[in-house]
Amino acid sequence: MKDWSGINVQAIIRVIGFLLVVEGLFMFTGLPFSLYYCEEGCMALLYSGLITVFFGGLLWFSTRKHPGSIAKKEGYVIVSMTWIIISLFGTLPFILSGAIPNFTDAFFETMSGFTTTGASILTDIESVPKGILFWRSMTHWIGGMGIIVFTVALLPILGIGGMQLYAAEMPGVTKDKLHPRITATAKRLWGIYVFFTVLETMMLMFGGMSLFDALCHSFGTMATGGFSTQNDSIASYSPYIQYVIILFMLLAGTNFTLHYFALHGQLKKVWKNEEFRYYLYLVFGGALIIALILAINQQGAAIESAIRNSLFQVVSIITTTGYITDNYLLWPNSMWYFIFLMMFVGGMAGSTGGGIKVVRQLLLVKNSLLELKRLIHPQAIIPVRMNGKVVTQEIIFKVMAFFLIYIFIMIMGSAMLAFLGLDAQTAVGASVATIGNIGPGIGSVGPVDNYSFIPYAGKWVLSFLMLLGRLELFTVLILFAPAFWKK
Amino acid sequence: MKDWSGINVQAIIRVIGFLLVVEGLFMFTGLPFSLYYCEEGCMALLYSGLITVFFGGLLWFSTRKHPGSIAKKEGYVIVSMTWIIISLFGTLPFILSGAIPNFTDAFFETMSGFTTTGASILTDIESVPKGILFWRSMTHWIGGMGIIVFTVALLPILGIGGMQLYAAEMPGVTKDKLHPRITATAKRLWGIYVFFTVLETMMLMFGGMSLFDALCHSFGTMATGGFSTQNDSIASYSPYIQYVIILFMLLAGTNFTLHYFALHGQLKKVWKNEEFRYYLYLVFGGALIIALILAINQQGAAIESAIRNSLFQVVSIITTTGYITDNYLLWPNSMWYFIFLMMFVGGMAGSTGGGIKVVRQLLLVKNSLLELKRLIHPQAIIPVRMNGKVVTQEIIFKVMAFFLIYIFIMIMGSAMLAFLGLDAQTAVGASVATIGNIGPGIGSVGPVDNYSFIPYAGKWVLSFLMLLGRLELFTVLILFAPAFWKK
Repeated sequence: MKDWSGINVQAIIRVIGFLLVVEGLFMFTGLPFSLYYCEEGCMALLYSGLITVFFGGLLWFSTRKHPGSIAKKEGYVIVSMTWIIISLFGTLPFILSGAIPNFTDAFFETMSGFTTTGASILTDIESVPKGILFWRSMTHWIGGMGIIVFTVALLPILGIGGMQLYAAEMPGVTKDKLHPRITATAKRLWGIYVFFTVLETMMLMFGGMSLFDALCHSFGTMATGGFSTQNDSIASYSPYIQYVIILFMLLAGTNFTLHYFALHGQLKKVWKNEEFRYYLYLVFGGALIIALILAINQQGAAIESAIRNSLFQVVSIITTTGYITDNYLLWPNSMWYFIFLMMFVGGMAGSTGGGIKVVRQLLLVKNSLLELKRLIHPQAIIPVRMNGKVVTQEIIFKVMAFFLIYIFIMIMGSAMLAFLGLDAQTAVGASVATIGNIGPGIGSVGPVDNYSFIPYAGKWVLSFLMLLGRLELFTVLILFAPAFWKK
Repeated sequence: MKDWSGINVQAIIRVIGFLLVVEGLFMFTGLPFSLYYCEEGCMALLYSGLITVFFGGLLWFSTRKHPGSIAKKEGYVIVSMTWIIISLFGTLPFILSGAIPNFTDAFFETMSGFTTTGASILTDIESVPKGILFWRSMTHWIGGMGIIVFTVALLPILGIGGMQLYAAEMPGVTKDKLHPRITATAKRLWGIYVFFTVLETMMLMFGGMSLFDALCHSFGTMATGGFSTQNDSIASYSPYIQYVIILFMLLAGTNFTLHYFALHGQLKKVWKNEEFRYYLYLVFGGALIIALILAINQQGAAIESAIRNSLFQVVSIITTTGYITDNYLLWPNSMWYFIFLMMFVGGMAGSTGGGIKVVRQLLLVKNSLLELKRLIHPQAIIPVRMNGKVVTQEIIFKVMAFFLIYIFIMIMGSAMLAFLGLDAQTAVGASVATIGNIGPGIGSVGPVDNYSFIPYAGKWVLSFLMLLGRLELFTVLILFAPAFWKK
């Protein structure tokens, strides 16, 4: 195969082939549950895994052994292609088991899994075979791992949306191309990811969950995904389990580099991190206000449940997880509007959370406040500072552009859904909840609803929004620029 | 009186005193109608005018004859103070006539007038004495005159939100402080404003309107205000009158410098103006799409009325006028959502229209498209171009910051209204419609509703939003910065 428009096609195919083999092997991990709880289509995971490994191997062996280097350009193509192709093959268990016979629905569900969105087209989750549900939650977990690599290895190098901010901060990340130290860093962060997943699983089992449910919910939490094994998400579980999930959602929405520092005893570095503090202020400040209003309006209800429900929903939405214990659309005083606004926050950069990201919000707020100062002293150079260091105007510029393009795409998406006949509130809710990789939105895609009723064209629009949001917009958009394909 | 914190207080008081005298004299212009249609409180305008002239004169004569120069700082204070004080005295006719006995309501209505917003707390406009209605429309017209001076004389010098873009473009505007040539330019543009007002009045009278109604509606159109003398706005008037108003709303939303060029035969300069073309594309493109959907859904209805209703509402919202011929909230297919999005466009810079302004939208769209190119060629400098000229990154930066702060304030405003008990849709609708100086919003402040039911605290929030939006945010916000008051 010839290199085309200066892009190392061989290398791309080889990487994707390899990742398909990995995906296929992951499918097998659900087999024990498939066999233990054997229901309909209990061999679907085996067949799907075999097919995926086979095709992956085929791609791998069709390429040269040393296909040459991978540069920025290949990076862009690999990332976008990976999420799409992995999602295509990821539909196999759903289709072969008959759990989701329709391809569009299955693709939506799988893309929602791998992008850690958690928006579902399933109307009765509990009737789906356990092995398939395990795979469904596994797509979250794999997606989360993918995002950690993407964040650590690619974002700072690609310089997307101001994320070059982190180029120097990640331990072991330098400006070199795919340096071996980056691989080491990714593995280190994966270690933390696995560690937290195991810890949460054990803590959930301690609260009475089965191994199956505990694993599925840990996958959904640590990836900030949101797929549950229950129709009512986390609502029926005990307060203990809800608090455990709150804790791990918070951890999953935190920059994994900070976990690395914390686990190495550098707690001061964690607490001094401005983004982290702003993240905690947002979460606990928002939760407190909502808890107060809930407590005042629910006369006689326990204060503890008001605090827990408020905290759970706020953490779930800000971290873009999407687990639910209470229908916020029914809260008094239009408080769903505040939940809706929180959908624009997103997790910390370097977490598995999606959305705009806390650091961008913080930079935008800081810069907005400084604009007045700049107007008063037009000659002075007044830069934004973050963690005591000057943030270049170039980065602020890119962050602002990112935010505007994010809003622009969200509006375009909602306009397309409105044209397809959705009411405006649902159209906006679905668009915001998918581009932010959250899951539940507002309107008819609220916390107790699902996405099954949306027309097929709309499901493709939303699948694309999930991909765009997850890969920080530009990684995908750049492939549509003719200039990208020129030598 | 001593100069304080380096601000020439004498000069400020003198200017405001002068403007109060002018306001008082303008009140007298409604007297003929007050006497001709003499109803209750027909002398209210006389008393109000006398009081206003008296206080204005008092301020004027209390200051030194040559109070010294007016610089940037005084400019900021004068502009904000003027709109507030003029609105305070502007309530007199409403209160003294008994038409709006409550002060908060009267202030809301007057601020809505002078900021050319057109949001009303009146539930039965037709029961208000004619003289008072004339004053109500006159506040629009005065506000529009004020905005022309503000735009021509101050904005390019203050460099707010990227508007230094126009510093060189306005005929006769240089970077000097309040140069006599600026006064000449302002007078020239006022000439155009008066000319169009007279022309529209004549054309409306030709369509059967009384002089009174024709004047009031011309005032409301040319200022992109939106106060009508009828309860149902423009809905009951003939198609001819509706088309006339469409035409003049379009003209009022156009940069008055372009009118100046056009009236001097420089039509090529007008047509080559990118902002103007983008404005026309938005208006006619948007209207065409909506007309199509209306025509398809209103089986049997005349195509002409679909086009007229669509065009009227689109022009009215984009120019931030707020006149209404059809309730867009009842349109099929959630088309109110597209109307809502248009509320973020605003008129052209240098027009009497409010909102974000077409030029800012255009710069943001252009810059967003270039961001991809910049990602592909990180070393290249790829500037935004406008009318063939390079727009500095500094200006793009300021435009982005303006947009973000605009959205941020709009969200803060809607959050405050939601806290006051308004449903979220109404809260957002009211906030967007007031900061954009539009008038009708969505929810319970839609095109056939009014603002009377909003709690008093909410009316003060909305009055402040009108002022902020009208004075391009920073002119007002800067007064809240402690640094501004330091020597």
